[in-house]
Amino acid sequence: MKTFAEATAVHGGDGVYQAELDPQWAIGDKLHGGYLMAILCRAVAGDAALAHLVAVTTTFLRPPKAGPATVRVELLRAGRTSGQFRARLEQDGTSCAEALVTQGELDESAAFWSSATTPEMTAEDDCVLLPSNPPGAQFPVHLLDVVEHRISPADLGFALGQPSQSGRIASWLRLADGADWDPLSMLVALDPAPPISLTLGITGWAPTITLTAYLRRLPAPGPLRVTMHSTEILGGRMDEVVFVWDAKDNLVAQATQLAGVRH
Amino acid sequence: MKTFAEATAVHGGDGVYQAELDPQWAIGDKLHGGYLMAILCRAVAGDAALAHLVAVTTTFLRPPKAGPATVRVELLRAGRTSGQFRARLEQDGTSCAEALVTQGELDESAAFWSSATTPEMTAEDDCVLLPSNPPGAQFPVHLLDVVEHRISPADLGFALGQPSQSGRIASWLRLADGADWDPLSMLVALDPAPPISLTLGITGWAPTITLTAYLRRLPAPGPLRVTMHSTEILGGRMDEVVFVWDAKDNLVAQATQLAGVRH
Repeated sequence: MKTFAEATAVHGGDGVYQAELDPQWAIGDKLHGGYLMAILCRAVAGDAALAHLVAVTTTFLRPPKAGPATVRVELLRAGRTSGQFRARLEQDGTSCAEALVTQGELDESAAFWSSATTPEMTAEDDCVLLPSNPPGAQFPVHLLDVVEHRISPADLGFALGQPSQSGRIASWLRLADGADWDPLSMLVALDPAPPISLTLGITGWAPTITLTAYLRRLPAPGPLRVTMHSTEILGGRMDEVVFVWDAKDNLVAQATQLAGVRH
Repeated sequence: MKTFAEATAVHGGDGVYQAELDPQWAIGDKLHGGYLMAILCRAVAGDAALAHLVAVTTTFLRPPKAGPATVRVELLRAGRTSGQFRARLEQDGTSCAEALVTQGELDESAAFWSSATTPEMTAEDDCVLLPSNPPGAQFPVHLLDVVEHRISPADLGFALGQPSQSGRIASWLRLADGADWDPLSMLVALDPAPPISLTLGITGWAPTITLTAYLRRLPAPGPLRVTMHSTEILGGRMDEVVFVWDAKDNLVAQATQLAGVRH
């Protein structure tokens, strides 16, 4: 089984990078959106003068398959404190996803100002590790073999046919390869499976239309706490809002996505 | 003074549109980001099979000046329920902003599910209409002559040198031309001036790095209520989260932006 770093490796330079999409980072046969964003952004980092991913919006066009893929990166503007890029994931000559990326520098400094409150969560040891192939599942969630996902028992009703109806999920996440989280791997935490709609009894896939992530800080070693909620579901679309905290109680990343949903 | 529809008009087709950027939709000499997004998205609508803007992320590269500009639109994927586009605003051969746009269909239907709570706000008549050229201002906010912006007295401390320190602003917005709001004009409401940082005593400009807007419903006639808050300010960057409600108490749009700020 590949580590996250191996599974998101890119080779190339000057705007053209080759990647090998790994079937392990998938829900059923669909490669995970956060995993694909990490590959896009690793390619951007190869072209960038500044070290860290700060913001990315990815619009998903067609689901790619596991196997070879190409990332094309174009510099839109190089500034002193940020660089802006467009990146495109292609497979067999077809565009699968397109991203706008801001690269900059992150550190571990304290907030100048914050209204964020660290979530009150069930202790990690008292949460339930989600299995990749639970009894009765329609398809295996291979992703759960590479991302350890522990979920609060209060949010677990969906797995027992008793959805909480809360529109909220709180989880502890660790990379199964033992690596510490970094800005690129946090993209996986920012597009968490399962989707919020499961807590409302909607069992179908909720394909991401577009996902926007902001990386705010370098995370401390240790597990991440991830809270996810939806504001509103209507017209076949759902928003999902995610906040990620590190082991030092700092907000390290946030994301918003619009997903399709059959309600 | 041009109406919103006139100030955002585009002419052309097949991926190339001409616009005339209007100096009225500006803060000082900086054209307003929501106004520029409306022009980008009006050009996309010219190429799109589906009627309404559903989602847009715009990355701002260089501030354009008032005057002629070109929008280039490229179709990324045409689907049955959504079309995805890239759009670029150019002036004098230079790219000023680039956007990823999802076009679809909106209506006024009820939510399938919602966790949104309509904001408790001071009545519109008891709010204070912001002037475009208040005494002691460093520069005129021309935008306030085309968008009537009424702010709760509790949030107004920044104008009197006594910032509320709340990181929140709630406002009533009307287009001064008397037009009802629509998905494109709501982009102006989703990037409201003044920035949240003013309530924390930070008086400088807060240039948008990237802004993501989701349009959720067609708004009812009447004023919009706009609430804006920040989650965290650090490392020279601030997030701003905006929700927009219509006169029927429905959530009609939401946005998140990352802006630069000197704290």
